[in-house]
Amino acid sequence: MGYFGGVEAGGTKFVCIVTDEHAKILAETRFPTTQPEETLQKTADFFTHWMSEQRLTLEAIGVASFGPVDLNTASETWGFITSTPKPGWRNTPVTPVLEKALGVPVFFDTDVNGAALGEGRWGAAQGLSDFVYLTIGTGIGGGVVCAGKPLHGLVHPEMGHIYLPHDRQADPFDGCCPYHRDCFEGLASGPALNRRWGVPAEKLPPDHPAWELEAHIIALALSTFICTLSPQRIILGGGVMAQHQLFPMIRKQVVEILNGYVQSKTLLEETESYIVSPGLGNQAGSLGAIALALRGS
Amino acid sequence: MGYFGGVEAGGTKFVCIVTDEHAKILAETRFPTTQPEETLQKTADFFTHWMSEQRLTLEAIGVASFGPVDLNTASETWGFITSTPKPGWRNTPVTPVLEKALGVPVFFDTDVNGAALGEGRWGAAQGLSDFVYLTIGTGIGGGVVCAGKPLHGLVHPEMGHIYLPHDRQADPFDGCCPYHRDCFEGLASGPALNRRWGVPAEKLPPDHPAWELEAHIIALALSTFICTLSPQRIILGGGVMAQHQLFPMIRKQVVEILNGYVQSKTLLEETESYIVSPGLGNQAGSLGAIALALRGS
Ligand SMILES: Nc1ncnc2c1ncn2[C@@H]1O[C@H](COP(=O)(O)OP(=O)(O)O)[C@@H](O)[C@H]1O
Ligand SMILES: Nc1ncnc2c1ncn2[C@@H]1O[C@H](COP(=O)(O)OP(=O)(O)O)[C@@H](O)[C@H]1O
Ligand SMILES: [Zn+2]
Ligand SMILES: [Zn+2]
Repeated sequence: MGYFGGVEAGGTKFVCIVTDEHAKILAETRFPTTQPEETLQKTADFFTHWMSEQRLTLEAIGVASFGPVDLNTASETWGFITSTPKPGWRNTPVTPVLEKALGVPVFFDTDVNGAALGEGRWGAAQGLSDFVYLTIGTGIGGGVVCAGKPLHGLVHPEMGHIYLPHDRQADPFDGCCPYHRDCFEGLASGPALNRRWGVPAEKLPPDHPAWELEAHIIALALSTFICTLSPQRIILGGGVMAQHQLFPMIRKQVVEILNGYVQSKTLLEETESYIVSPGLGNQAGSLGAIALALRGS
Repeated sequence: MGYFGGVEAGGTKFVCIVTDEHAKILAETRFPTTQPEETLQKTADFFTHWMSEQRLTLEAIGVASFGPVDLNTASETWGFITSTPKPGWRNTPVTPVLEKALGVPVFFDTDVNGAALGEGRWGAAQGLSDFVYLTIGTGIGGGVVCAGKPLHGLVHPEMGHIYLPHDRQADPFDGCCPYHRDCFEGLASGPALNRRWGVPAEKLPPDHPAWELEAHIIALALSTFICTLSPQRIILGGGVMAQHQLFPMIRKQVVEILNGYVQSKTLLEETESYIVSPGLGNQAGSLGAIALALRGS
């Protein structure tokens, strides 16, 4: 028996929850991401109030954060948001501030690694050891679970920033990544759709040719992830994937692109359960943070 | 104290060695890869003779094999070479045949995962937990160590078969992968160089423009691997990488392609020790097999 805190630290909003060890949500708050000091203070206050009101202590808190972040526990800046372009947030010591304010162990990872772990525990990747959670929204980011653990490596994956074949005759759009122009994120994020077609992505009708192209770009990226990470399943979340007509198009094209090279029944014959929606919907982020807290505890 | 067997099972040749537990080579044989029965018989004979001559038993044998292979220990075809185009070798039960013939536990992985493990233990990746071993030769393949363990996932990575941007104005060559035409392997393997320039790769002088293009393609692929796998180091082996002038060109271009997005001193300032040659030279394959045997034991 025990209680856990989860913080989905997003670039737009923070979501903080308290759950029991079965991830039953007992308290929740959401607020916009403003300056770091104010935002982290509100986060700490939420948990402090809950603990004093309930006369209970949290076992641990998990923070699933926007990034880039420092995940190297041996580093002096472990638990920091590092080189983000978000104004004011460069070099923000998220974990140290919360540990100091709350006196509770804090476990920290990327938002997408958190979401991946949450999906593994309670969502669309239960029982699997190796899988990818990809979000396609304002940006594109991926979390990777490898042999049951979130992949960190040198820093952490930046799956939105790979280059893909870009046929400028079929798609003359230049791309909008400030670092790479026509990387995956530069071509297929929500803002890229908006810039290419001149309307917000959510305004494009489901039969608009935008979606055929979008599915093609996503399928190219997934083929690359399959060839490098060999996931047992790929979960696609984020605002853009609310366009459910994308799923069958993506599945079909992934199989075509790989062209029989990766011989796996799971991939070739069970494609519908290979490329899927998140099981936790819009709680993937905050429950992912709880998964981090539970892992650490 | 103990003795171990290692089999580098290549598409062209087999190398079998016996070592002590410090990987000191005590016996070795090499022979061309012919039909499976004959080749596996020769392999078994080598170890049987060594054991009866020495009156010693091997603790375990590691097999680092060309592929694709089945690495799923729960599968009925675990330890098989599966869907290879190599004539006669489709569905070859490598591990079952050797276990039956020798009565010794056999540990099995891809050639490149073996090489990666060997480099981790005795070569260019000592002390690291997350790294990539890439071979650029007749084909292109990659082994991945993730949190100290070889990455398998659904099947195993097929890092040679990712698609990269291909500027047909700068490089009109169509590519030569029988599955994907202009995937990484189709554009940058030894045979691709041969087909593009009309001479064997080893005949191209070091200042030939072929190498600038080759470095560019390899750098694009490494950038993708960095964004997906976040390795702490990348080891580049195989026949083509005998062209040592490629290394500085590749390093420079990887940093340019990522354009500061992945903020890591290791990558940005220590690039010379980030992208490196194998430490085990042409013993990487067979010692990799020993590393597999030692892991299992
Ligand atoms: N129904 C929809 N169809 C297509 N695109 C959408 C839809 N809803 C939101 N988006 C796009 O998704 C992006 C927001 O992604 P989201 O995952 O919700 O947030 P964030 O990435 O900021 O966490 C925006 O660019 C928006 O245009
Ligand atoms: N010195 C060299 N420079 C460039 N390419 C070479 C060199 N030596 C071999 N190669 C190329 O590498 C390929 C063989 O790769 P290698 O790694 O030796 O064997 P394999 O991949 O079959 O195990 C051939 O295509 C050959 O043309
Ligand atoms: Zn980018
Ligand atoms: Zn290919």
